[in-house]
Amino acid sequence: MKKSLGAKVVAMPSPVWIVGTYGDHNQPNIMTVAWGGICCSVPPCIAISVQQSRLTHSNITKRKAFTINVPSRHHLAEADYAGIASGKYADKFSVTSLTPVRSELVDAPYIQEFLLVLECKLLHTIELGRHTQFIGQIIDAKADEAVLSDNENPAMASVNPLISSAADRKYYALGECLGQTYHIGLQLVDKNGK
Amino acid sequence: MKKSLGAKVVAMPSPVWIVGTYGDHNQPNIMTVAWGGICCSVPPCIAISVQQSRLTHSNITKRKAFTINVPSRHHLAEADYAGIASGKYADKFSVTSLTPVRSELVDAPYIQEFLLVLECKLLHTIELGRHTQFIGQIIDAKADEAVLSDNENPAMASVNPLISSAADRKYYALGECLGQTYHIGLQLVDKNGK
Repeated sequence: MKKSLGAKVVAMPSPVWIVGTYGDHNQPNIMTVAWGGICCSVPPCIAISVQQSRLTHSNITKRKAFTINVPSRHHLAEADYAGIASGKYADKFSVTSLTPVRSELVDAPYIQEFLLVLECKLLHTIELGRHTQFIGQIIDAKADEAVLSDNENPAMASVNPLISSAADRKYYALGECLGQTYHIGLQLVDKNGK
Repeated sequence: MKKSLGAKVVAMPSPVWIVGTYGDHNQPNIMTVAWGGICCSVPPCIAISVQQSRLTHSNITKRKAFTINVPSRHHLAEADYAGIASGKYADKFSVTSLTPVRSELVDAPYIQEFLLVLECKLLHTIELGRHTQFIGQIIDAKADEAVLSDNENPAMASVNPLISSAADRKYYALGECLGQTYHIGLQLVDKNGK
C-alpha cells in the first residue's frame, strides 16, 4: 500500500554539479546545483535550475554562458560549500583553493582540478516559478585523459561523481557497475519476440 | 591537461526513470528515460526529455499527464527493457509482469510494484531539437511505507535507485551515504568566516 506524500520533489537520484560563471569585473564564481539533467541530443543540451535570488542567476542572464563541472567524490566538501555560501559575499574559488580557467569557447570559467567539465552557451531561459531553468547548449566537453575509456568517453567509475537526493538531503557515492544499457533487458525481448 | 571531447552529452550521473502514460484505447505504456531532473520547487516540477518518434511523446501530448516511476536495483532488467522496446509493438506492462494502477489525480498509470512514484500534469512543452522536454507539475508523490524515514520522506538508500551514464552507456548501483547536504561544507565556511 502506497502512502501519499503530497506534491513533493522527491524524485531520485539527482546529480551534484558545480556551475561556473563570471560576475561583474570578471569575478569567477561557482555554485552547486542538484536540479538539472541532460535534455537534448541534437543540439546537445543540458538544463539546470537556479533561484532568481542567486548570483549565478544574474551571471548566467548577463553572460549567456555557464560551465558544468562534475565533482569527484574527493571534492565533496568543496561541492557542499559551493552550495552553502553565496558569491555575493565570498570568493568561493579562493575559499576552496580551486582554480578558475577561462573558457576559450564560452564566457564562463571552468574548474581546473575537476576531471570532467562542459562549456555551455545559454540557449533558453524558462521561468517556472521559484526556479528558473537555464538550458545551455554544450559547446565542448573536456576531460582529463586519465578518465577516458577506449572509446574516448569519460568512464563514470573513473570520474566517480557524487549523487544526491532532495528527498533525504544526503550525498551518496557511486556504487558498482551493473552492466551495459540496452543489454540486460534483451532477455525480455527475446522471451517475447518483440 | 584536459582533452577536448567535442560537443557531447557526457554529463553524469543521470537518473533511470520509467515514464507511465496512456495511449489510445487507454493502453498503459512505460518507457525508460535517463534525461531529466527536478526543475522547480514552487510549483514542484520535474522535466523529462523524449524524442518525437516515441509513443510516450504522443501519449503525453494527448493526455497532458505522465508518471515518474523510480526503479529499484532489482528492477534493472525491466527498466532496461522498457528503454529498448516500443509500446507501438509490445505491451510492455505485460512483458515485464508489472501492474499498471490508474492514477486518481492525473490521466496516467503508475507502476504498483515500484517503491516511489510521482504523478505529474503537463505544464510546459519545450521543443529543443531532436528531443522535446516535457515539464510536469508534481501533483502527488507516493511511496511504500517501508522506504519512508522518520521525516516522512523516502530514503534513497531504501529506494536504492539505478544510476546511469550517457557517456559510457552503463548502469550503476547506489553506493554508500557520504553525509547530509549543507553540512560537510560548513568546515570551509567556518575556516573563512563567510
